[in-house]
Amino acid sequence: MLSAEIIAIGSELLSPNRTDTNSLWLTDQLNRIGIDVKLKTIVGDDDARLEEVIKDAVKRSRVVITTGGLGPTEDDITRKVVARGLGKRLSLDEKVLEEIRERFKSYGMKMPERNSRQAMVIAGAEVLSNPNGSAPGLYLEHDGCAIALLPGPPREMKPMFANHVLPRIENLAGNTRFATRVLRVAGLGESAVDEKIAPIYTKYENPQTTILFNSSEIEIHLRAHGRTEADAEALLDDLSLKIESELGNAAFSFRVETMEEVVGRRLAMTEFTLAVAESCTGGLIAQRLTSVPGSSKYFIEGVVTYSNESKIRLLGVDKKLIKEFGAVSPQVARDMARGVRHKAKTDFGLAVTGIAGPGGGTEEKPVGLVYIALADDAHTEHRKLTLPGDRELVRWRASQAALDMLRRRLI
Amino acid sequence: MLSAEIIAIGSELLSPNRTDTNSLWLTDQLNRIGIDVKLKTIVGDDDARLEEVIKDAVKRSRVVITTGGLGPTEDDITRKVVARGLGKRLSLDEKVLEEIRERFKSYGMKMPERNSRQAMVIAGAEVLSNPNGSAPGLYLEHDGCAIALLPGPPREMKPMFANHVLPRIENLAGNTRFATRVLRVAGLGESAVDEKIAPIYTKYENPQTTILFNSSEIEIHLRAHGRTEADAEALLDDLSLKIESELGNAAFSFRVETMEEVVGRRLAMTEFTLAVAESCTGGLIAQRLTSVPGSSKYFIEGVVTYSNESKIRLLGVDKKLIKEFGAVSPQVARDMARGVRHKAKTDFGLAVTGIAGPGGGTEEKPVGLVYIALADDAHTEHRKLTLPGDRELVRWRASQAALDMLRRRLI
Repeated sequence: MLSAEIIAIGSELLSPNRTDTNSLWLTDQLNRIGIDVKLKTIVGDDDARLEEVIKDAVKRSRVVITTGGLGPTEDDITRKVVARGLGKRLSLDEKVLEEIRERFKSYGMKMPERNSRQAMVIAGAEVLSNPNGSAPGLYLEHDGCAIALLPGPPREMKPMFANHVLPRIENLAGNTRFATRVLRVAGLGESAVDEKIAPIYTKYENPQTTILFNSSEIEIHLRAHGRTEADAEALLDDLSLKIESELGNAAFSFRVETMEEVVGRRLAMTEFTLAVAESCTGGLIAQRLTSVPGSSKYFIEGVVTYSNESKIRLLGVDKKLIKEFGAVSPQVARDMARGVRHKAKTDFGLAVTGIAGPGGGTEEKPVGLVYIALADDAHTEHRKLTLPGDRELVRWRASQAALDMLRRRLI
Repeated sequence: MLSAEIIAIGSELLSPNRTDTNSLWLTDQLNRIGIDVKLKTIVGDDDARLEEVIKDAVKRSRVVITTGGLGPTEDDITRKVVARGLGKRLSLDEKVLEEIRERFKSYGMKMPERNSRQAMVIAGAEVLSNPNGSAPGLYLEHDGCAIALLPGPPREMKPMFANHVLPRIENLAGNTRFATRVLRVAGLGESAVDEKIAPIYTKYENPQTTILFNSSEIEIHLRAHGRTEADAEALLDDLSLKIESELGNAAFSFRVETMEEVVGRRLAMTEFTLAVAESCTGGLIAQRLTSVPGSSKYFIEGVVTYSNESKIRLLGVDKKLIKEFGAVSPQVARDMARGVRHKAKTDFGLAVTGIAGPGGGTEEKPVGLVYIALADDAHTEHRKLTLPGDRELVRWRASQAALDMLRRRLI
């Protein structure tokens, strides 16, 4: 495949607290048109190093994209250093200068003198307009290499790439088009998933399949190529249908939807309502469900009952059950689910009780022991989970398993 | 300052879904001993490119650290390519091989033949033992450059750097030691913070001060140097005390604590208890508070009352208030705070009601309008917020402002 390099420019990207994320989006965009990212560099506002990086990149790659360093200050060295690295002149473009002046005028401001630096153009380069900021981009070809200089802020960089760079490079790798799809799986382990679907996907070279493990979700990444995007999509449809039918209910998301979006969509479609009672997840399930716009249609109420007294008062959990079996028990989980459903007058009640750690575990009830329960008008089911990981991971995995229990009921 | 480069090796780091984070931790470690990271490269399992990157790095930097590519498979090319780039021989070290064999034996396994590759050592390099994995690291000096090859998994890389690399390079930059501190601020805008503290910090060249803006928190980063770490810390103490006293209650965290940790610590210290009633934040405040280990001591219960019916039944909010002023109103926020406190019999009741968007806004009550209220036994206070941002940001900012209201009351 054709090779690209991405160069992120700016000293702030070399601090212990910041990382370059523009390159992730750019990589996805380039992969779709059959271009592989072979190298990424992060360099500060450092003339000598940037010049060396640019020279090397242009020599070894067919596409080079830089982000950042196009601002109006002394630190913004991209234009100047790229021109020098390529041995090209840099000169003031009166037309670009006028546009920048106009832009400031439209905000009722006079252009600060230093912004004239943003009108400097490398000889032979095309100027890429930036409706979202003051820094125009540049595009040029040099010794068979396509070079794009883009601004650093994502809201300026992304539209500039999509509108001006993509059309110029999309046929570089030939007419081949690529498409990707991500399937998310819940309730099955990584090796169980591979065992089920390896006999299917190993028969295909196109699409290519990769299985990734990520908190408590397993992602199956498919990547296909064809003469058009529709051809590639059709190949994805074919394979993903076979994988889905093998995995059955375990595959929950096919278009990068989250679990809470999938559950929310099903609740909205079926017009069922939900109430949630949480102990160890501490509001995480309610927070995930209500992060979805429009969730007020189906999410009626949530309670976080950390104390036994709250479980009794707010949910009507039987005191004797807590005494006999403990707050972390299948009996209490079931009573919580029934109780919250009854009090909130919803179709479903979902409940979680468990020990998230790091403290609070015993030999009999260790950290990671969680019970989840789901009640509707006809019956109540529960599941026992033994979850590995730290407090954050136990909580997240418990919330995922509880939402997955509801999702499966809604199928 | 002395310059370093970090090279992350592995094709998976060039996908659209993965990013190198090892370098952030390494940058912090290097900065403490007076070494600046000048360049970071991410390169795949690609012999030619890696060789070029290594050669350039060794020429221009005093310290070069690579992570990844030390595994037992064909893809793991770091040892081989670095040896070639430096023009040094690579040979099997029988002692290292024996150690790897022993390691497998201790797990009751026979070493797979391909793992012998991990016993290859570059001429002149010291072998760095890896108690957390099978890949030993390597350290060598070449033409005045200190080079460390470390494994990719953070739990193997970090102890290896701390135990074996740090002692070898910590005096390279001389005896100067660096220390950093982060102050977090809530309830003041970025320019208000700068206006207050610029007259103080501009008087100092050491420590250096940077102000960063990040969701709804402002971070003040201080960086000092001295002959010892204690000297540098003393300089930080001096300046941060002055800044803190100027900012008063607005500075809430001095040691990278989160808002929920600060509030939790104060509640635990004072032995006060808390209940939370949430509408638009949907459980986010409860979830943040209960993410802190030990929070069951002070967090008694939370309710997520999305519907009016829930507000009335669970919190005893006056029906007439909702009818007259609407669910998003100071009156209802105050009644929610009083109600949840009363029902849960806690010292404090904290409540949020608002419009997180994207839907649900009106001209009179637009998206981003949020009321927060706090009740104790003596009185109830409330605040009106007009928050910019999307649903996620409005919810986060509302949760932050509510927690900050409680924090200020606890001072």
